[in-house]
Amino acid sequence: MTSPLEIGRAILAAQPFSVLLGTEMTAYGDNGVELRLAITDAVRQQHGFAHGGVLAYLADNALTFAGGFAMGGGVLTADLKLNYVRPGIGQMLIARATAINAGKTQAVCRGEVFVVNDGAEKICLIAQGMVLRAAHAPTSRALSEQEAIS
Amino acid sequence: MTSPLEIGRAILAAQPFSVLLGTEMTAYGDNGVELRLAITDAVRQQHGFAHGGVLAYLADNALTFAGGFAMGGGVLTADLKLNYVRPGIGQMLIARATAINAGKTQAVCRGEVFVVNDGAEKICLIAQGMVLRAAHAPTSRALSEQEAIS
Amino acid sequence: MTSPLEIGRAILAAQPFSVLLGTEMTAYGDNGVELRLAITDAVRQQHGFAHGGVLAYLADNALTFAGGFAMGGGVLTADLKLNYVRPGIGQMLIARATAINAGKTQAVCRGEVFVVNDGAEKICLIAQGMVLRAAHAPTSRALSEQEAIS
Amino acid sequence: MTSPLEIGRAILAAQPFSVLLGTEMTAYGDNGVELRLAITDAVRQQHGFAHGGVLAYLADNALTFAGGFAMGGGVLTADLKLNYVRPGIGQMLIARATAINAGKTQAVCRGEVFVVNDGAEKICLIAQGMVLRAAHAPTSRALSEQEAIS
Repeated sequence: MTSPLEIGRAILAAQPFSVLLGTEMTAYGDNGVELRLAITDAVRQQHGFAHGGVLAYLADNALTFAGGFAMGGGVLTADLKLNYVRPGIGQMLIARATAINAGKTQAVCRGEVFVVNDGAEKICLIAQGMVLRAAHAPTSRALSEQEAIS
Repeated sequence: MTSPLEIGRAILAAQPFSVLLGTEMTAYGDNGVELRLAITDAVRQQHGFAHGGVLAYLADNALTFAGGFAMGGGVLTADLKLNYVRPGIGQMLIARATAINAGKTQAVCRGEVFVVNDGAEKICLIAQGMVLRAAHAPTSRALSEQEAIS
Repeated sequence: MTSPLEIGRAILAAQPFSVLLGTEMTAYGDNGVELRLAITDAVRQQHGFAHGGVLAYLADNALTFAGGFAMGGGVLTADLKLNYVRPGIGQMLIARATAINAGKTQAVCRGEVFVVNDGAEKICLIAQGMVLRAAHAPTSRALSEQEAIS
Repeated sequence: MTSPLEIGRAILAAQPFSVLLGTEMTAYGDNGVELRLAITDAVRQQHGFAHGGVLAYLADNALTFAGGFAMGGGVLTADLKLNYVRPGIGQMLIARATAINAGKTQAVCRGEVFVVNDGAEKICLIAQGMVLRAAHAPTSRALSEQEAIS
């Protein structure tokens, strides 16, 4: 039997952009989603920090996975809200997300991105967003996350 | 004399993550900011669309540049708000952004990301966000955008 | 024949909270929505400015009306994003909103709240948000705006 | 000696708009902020639910208080992000908020608004937002929350 984490990792592995960035999934289940991304030179901005767009990508992906898990797959992210609170200075980014409220057609999720610097983990991004069930949604950005690999 | 567009392109060229993705700047000045990114296989998600995180990156970058231009550099993005309205299906993404209101310590910007498919341009992301002057800000994510290259 | 503005005003008049605050509708149609609210003592906060919650209410209402008009009624507001840029110091608040993108099941709207002080109009709030068609939505906060009065 | 809750209640009592709506503060301290508002006829929209603008007001106020407590007063709300997940059907609204991350110049807060219907409490709004220290801020919407009554 396939575990939720194996399912999540298979979806992540099917995202060329996540493969490009080297994103890894370290949790996917009832306790939420966790993604990790090593801060290599390729993901920096002009001051050497992790680019804000990389943090936004990681939050987007974590919240979409969290919403997809809560709703049993077949979702798309409709709305994403981010507050940047600290630059991404360090060796690793960790995003964690969970669904706060899930109904038949939508789920609202929260998450954070942390940066790990010399072993110390600090928050750098605080996120909230909404996923919609694809069948009720205006787009098909992520038509069927879990079904896609079933 | 260096034009604003040359300054903007130099900042963009100093962002390794933007170089990785191949982002190009096609406008930077009083009429706003325009960034373009070709949809290569590397930026897709599992259904073949441009990854939502790529759209978020492009919006983040466009709004930060727009706020930096309005405030004369030295800004960081504190807040980013996104609505996804259409999947990124096509050959090219174009982000456009302008500052709506700029004061001494903050600017609020708006922008959109469009996808170009067989020559037709359609909106796929609608964004709003705020940049803060770095000296008054809690972080130094983009300490000094324009000064950095002066 | 009933004009859109008459329809909009009838919906507004059916909102006891808007009647309490004295909100007036001055536009409702293809060119967008405009709401006006006099800054009386009752809507102030502890420093004498219009309360931020009043600005939020006015933005919420303007964007929901704009989304409802774009989709032909029957919508609810699912998401609202606000940037406060100036205190509400003056005699009148004016909110304006339009739909930026409307599909079958959602519309994304933008709007602003201005404060009028001694005849000069200044922006104090910048808003973006999304309405969903009620039939596809998890709640029925505004089940049927236009049908409700038909 | 004046307790934090007494300070918070004095600020709330100095807000004419909160007095108009009958908002009560039931917690203000290290464990966060709690505000309560009875759903009277005056705060409804056209379908009999609590108006979305009332929920937005309550979230705005709770998050601003939470940020003000975390930063020792003197803050203003710069950014507010809301997801509506259920209509406000019932007898009472309860808003709870805490600061997630507070620095020298900003704090990011989260909160929720619940509706109590026949004794059962259900979530209806999920919020995230940022307050700025007034001295570093472009406006003076809430110049000095705690100092104002000292």
